[in-house]
Amino acid sequence: GLLLEVSTHGPSSVPRSSWKQNDVDLLEFWEPDVFNYTTLLLNEDRGVLYVGAREAVYELNISNISIKNNQLLWKVPDIDMSMCILKGKSKETDCRNYIRVLQVLDEEHLYVCGTHAFQPLCDYLSLQDFRLLEKAEDGRGKCSYDPSQSFTTVMVDGELYSGTAYNFLGSEPIISRSSPSQSLLRTEYSTSWLNEPSFVFADVIREGQDSPDGDDDKIYYFFTEVSVEYEFFGKLLIPRIARVCKGDLGGQRTLQKKWTSFLKAKLVCSMPELNFVFNVVHDVFILKAPHWRDTVIYGVFTSQWGNVGLSAVCAYNMSSVHEVFSRGKYMQKVTVEQSHTKWVRFNGAPPSPRPGACINNMNRQQNMSSSLHLPDKTLQFVRDHPLLEDPVLPIGNGPRLITKDVNYTQIAVQRVQALDNSIHHVIFTATDKGFLHKSVVLENEVHTVEEVQLLKNSEPIKTLLLSTDQAQFLYAGSDSGVVQSPTAFCQKYGSCVDCVLARDPYCAWDTQSKACVNIFQSKADPRKMIQNLKGDAGICPPVSPLAVKDYPLLLVKPGASADLPCRVQSNRAQVLWKLNNQLLSDSSSRLLLMSESSLLLYSVTMEDAGRYECWSVESAAGQNFSRVVSGYILRLDLPESKSAQLTRE
Amino acid sequence: GLLLEVSTHGPSSVPRSSWKQNDVDLLEFWEPDVFNYTTLLLNEDRGVLYVGAREAVYELNISNISIKNNQLLWKVPDIDMSMCILKGKSKETDCRNYIRVLQVLDEEHLYVCGTHAFQPLCDYLSLQDFRLLEKAEDGRGKCSYDPSQSFTTVMVDGELYSGTAYNFLGSEPIISRSSPSQSLLRTEYSTSWLNEPSFVFADVIREGQDSPDGDDDKIYYFFTEVSVEYEFFGKLLIPRIARVCKGDLGGQRTLQKKWTSFLKAKLVCSMPELNFVFNVVHDVFILKAPHWRDTVIYGVFTSQWGNVGLSAVCAYNMSSVHEVFSRGKYMQKVTVEQSHTKWVRFNGAPPSPRPGACINNMNRQQNMSSSLHLPDKTLQFVRDHPLLEDPVLPIGNGPRLITKDVNYTQIAVQRVQALDNSIHHVIFTATDKGFLHKSVVLENEVHTVEEVQLLKNSEPIKTLLLSTDQAQFLYAGSDSGVVQSPTAFCQKYGSCVDCVLARDPYCAWDTQSKACVNIFQSKADPRKMIQNLKGDAGICPPVSPLAVKDYPLLLVKPGASADLPCRVQSNRAQVLWKLNNQLLSDSSSRLLLMSESSLLLYSVTMEDAGRYECWSVESAAGQNFSRVVSGYILRLDLPESKSAQLTRE
Repeated sequence: GLLLEVSTHGPSSVPRSSWKQNDVDLLEFWEPDVFNYTTLLLNEDRGVLYVGAREAVYELNISNISIKNNQLLWKVPDIDMSMCILKGKSKETDCRNYIRVLQVLDEEHLYVCGTHAFQPLCDYLSLQDFRLLEKAEDGRGKCSYDPSQSFTTVMVDGELYSGTAYNFLGSEPIISRSSPSQSLLRTEYSTSWLNEPSFVFADVIREGQDSPDGDDDKIYYFFTEVSVEYEFFGKLLIPRIARVCKGDLGGQRTLQKKWTSFLKAKLVCSMPELNFVFNVVHDVFILKAPHWRDTVIYGVFTSQWGNVGLSAVCAYNMSSVHEVFSRGKYMQKVTVEQSHTKWVRFNGAPPSPRPGACINNMNRQQNMSSSLHLPDKTLQFVRDHPLLEDPVLPIGNGPRLITKDVNYTQIAVQRVQALDNSIHHVIFTATDKGFLHKSVVLENEVHTVEEVQLLKNSEPIKTLLLSTDQAQFLYAGSDSGVVQSPTAFCQKYGSCVDCVLARDPYCAWDTQSKACVNIFQSKADPRKMIQNLKGDAGICPPVSPLAVKDYPLLLVKPGASADLPCRVQSNRAQVLWKLNNQLLSDSSSRLLLMSESSLLLYSVTMEDAGRYECWSVESAAGQNFSRVVSGYILRLDLPESKSAQLTRE
Repeated sequence: GLLLEVSTHGPSSVPRSSWKQNDVDLLEFWEPDVFNYTTLLLNEDRGVLYVGAREAVYELNISNISIKNNQLLWKVPDIDMSMCILKGKSKETDCRNYIRVLQVLDEEHLYVCGTHAFQPLCDYLSLQDFRLLEKAEDGRGKCSYDPSQSFTTVMVDGELYSGTAYNFLGSEPIISRSSPSQSLLRTEYSTSWLNEPSFVFADVIREGQDSPDGDDDKIYYFFTEVSVEYEFFGKLLIPRIARVCKGDLGGQRTLQKKWTSFLKAKLVCSMPELNFVFNVVHDVFILKAPHWRDTVIYGVFTSQWGNVGLSAVCAYNMSSVHEVFSRGKYMQKVTVEQSHTKWVRFNGAPPSPRPGACINNMNRQQNMSSSLHLPDKTLQFVRDHPLLEDPVLPIGNGPRLITKDVNYTQIAVQRVQALDNSIHHVIFTATDKGFLHKSVVLENEVHTVEEVQLLKNSEPIKTLLLSTDQAQFLYAGSDSGVVQSPTAFCQKYGSCVDCVLARDPYCAWDTQSKACVNIFQSKADPRKMIQNLKGDAGICPPVSPLAVKDYPLLLVKPGASADLPCRVQSNRAQVLWKLNNQLLSDSSSRLLLMSESSLLLYSVTMEDAGRYECWSVESAAGQNFSRVVSGYILRLDLPESKSAQLTRE
């Protein structure tokens, strides 16, 4: 099957360790009768996490989110709710106020918007007394009407950039900028610009900083939309990256109050050798760097077809994104034989200045100091040709990571410096069942260190945030609450071999305290610590194996049963049971290999007596590391005489 | 996930019974060191099955294929093999003679072709002495060079129609007719005609019989090819139905020695409501009827993407196929902006006579008695427009059957008349793992009666044939042998309830012999037989249940274990275990539900004693049919005194 091929071809990875929710120390926050904790905002200077939920905003302690500093309830007045119900929306869900915008405006205020019973409304939240200033502003174009519709937003220098729907029906998609000083700047309402988009992310890239040619900062948007350029049996979805310039003021006549800099391109995440396409993007994380050219964009994708939970992570260099937008060919829409619309590459020479480019020094020299001065030809061209033909290709031309039987919903990435000073990207992906996966990008492979059950119930993680300070915590928002998780669980590894085989860049074995420690939190001497991201556990100090005389003795009556537990932590290890050094095969009729590798013997007879050992065999760094995990001595509980006879034999 | 949706939306079906290879009586044929038994030909008049394998042709007894009547070995001479190896092909596989054509020429001869070390060769096999006439004929265009390439062929009135590759490299696909009296008639070498096709089937439909307008017989071809009309990230596969007219002689100037009647259309098998497309056709079976309009075409499909073993069966009415070919719109290729090729609907008026149509009475009246007289305009048009825009849609606009976790490779369909005279289509589908599924199309549903393991090893069934005489046997060819299987296993059902719940139109309960019998083989009085395809087992005569006093007694020592077998034949039944009429839940720590529904009790204590019953509950015809399948009395084997005490209590 193709799935098998995909999973054997791609950089697929099984999490080495699996932690259940009650295996690890997680902190939670939720309040009775409050739902949809999906809008999270970290403020590390203040040491707080802001949470936007349904009809509530909370300020939580960043180090322990179960501590609530402040709260604000923001309900919908009865009259607005009645209007909403009259329009056919549901009282229980739709006609409530879902907080979807939570942005830092200045040191003393947050800007907050809610769906407010399908009548989006915004206000200012004073951080001093945690109250609204009650300067209610129309939220149209800033926040969605429908709490279940896709939505993204980012605040840049006091201006709010959104990707949402502009009408009650949700049928008019819009990418817009709301500014206190200017009128709303927006996309054209045309399927060439946006065609049933699902917005997933937006952020600013400060390309203007120290730009020699006076280039502008850009806001990048990520979404999945219905393709116009391909033809298919049905609707073909396609992942997109779009951008606008921060300094855009719209056109003077053409594109008045519309973006003059809106361009979009296809975001490719595929395995060309297998003709397999991941064509739905679910979330994006931008791993920023001191210089914008070194920025890396990470996305999580699934496929539109035969979706059985194959998820992929693709990474993109910001420099190649920049190249596509500043030099890529445009596509044009052509009418063929009167009645057919087709999109093809535009082969002619586009007008100058380049349509969709930001204003730079060269334009300024030609007396075009803002988009208002751009010539009509350039504006008309970009209005009709918002789509670039050149795609944005992933680093390495394929996915960084492919995971089977999982639907990733969110992604966050951290740069981590290992003990040997090498720097690794650690990818955190969240699933639709409430799990978190942590994967390390190593030289030629991706290693998935662990999966952690963050949510008690099987529900999607809808928001995932990383603290930047000390890289200590992750915050996951879902419909039923917020969870705070450490980024590593080093103390879970009880031996040096386990600590090294985990291949977790956060963890190292401290030879002095004889513990697996988090290198970012431990005060131990780094020279006394052992870490090897290839997993070469051969560098660990030798330990004396469990002595046979210390094996627990099990006395079992003939015909009775015995349960021999064996807890192997690694999903990558093979588990073998031996009886008196002979490998046991599970074809024997009176023994069963149970879950978690324990052995059940039933109808025990004389021949079952002996020394049982549970072995774990794990391969890493080209070697096999074998260990006895548990050992037992099974003896039959016979009447005195019989056992005495046997002893004599 | 989508897969879940597809399987819950579609007419998906789990086989009710599963038969392992050694559960049933199958007959096999294979010879040492001979492989690839994939070309099968039934001759029911002679009572034989011809088998073409690698370097061998066999004549087997149709009633017992383990009896070999005749054999012919046809090896490749050393010189030809050396040439083949020189050209870079493998000695062990490629450079052998794979028999791929085995067709009845006349009463005394078969026409046989083999790949013959990448130099296809044909010859005549005399049935009298089972020897080749040694009139070796060039097999180019009749048989494939490459034994692993797709290939199809059919003999019609002494002329051989093939779908294959015309060159050594396998890069030039061809649909051709070889005739003793005329030169080869073939397709143009153009991607508009054939674009990397995988041929699966070809057969003649006698549309000319009693045709009032003097229409011709047609040969229909089925294949999957790379789409030209859709655009996609990569290659998009598309299933096709193509046809040519039997009387086609090619054109006079235009299309000389080429088909003047080659047209093709898209064969749709999709679930439009889910935007899910099965776009790869693997095999086709034509269920013929006295009048060609009543013919039904069955195809097995999978999808190109995320192929995790979702297979579909679609059915097409011959009359709608005819409609598409005789009235459908054509597609045309257009060049857009100099450099792009696009396919769009041709909206103009096509020339007359209709391009691609067969010669009929009207043409003859206009002095066009053969394709040689067709006007250049018609011929040029059909050369450039071989593709129709209108698709061939399945009956009911969707699949007849969808099966999960299975890749179907072959299909055969039989019309079966049940005891109540109703006629049902029984669909036999073969898998890539050597299994056979048998499904009955009932009024509003499809019921999969059984799955049968035909092959010992997990390998694909590559050919599937049904005997038409008495509908008794199925023949399945694979790389390692041929298997003969009955079409029904009625005797497997031991009770009337089981026989009726099976819902097998071949089977009925004979109340006189008290056995489930094959209605086509039994001589019993049909009025004494019970059959109900809805599965209403309530019509069965009441049977006295197993008496508790007949339950086997199990004496178990305290702490020992007990294994209570229960064999439930139906995969659709729910199995419940009861202890003293109380339902047992599998959360109890000392009992395990094993494979095949048996119960394992271990560490038995006093409270485990009692009456155990294994119940099967199966729903059919809107009712639940519950039965005790096995019962046991479990008693503890205690020292005398203790048990005596207990008895007194």
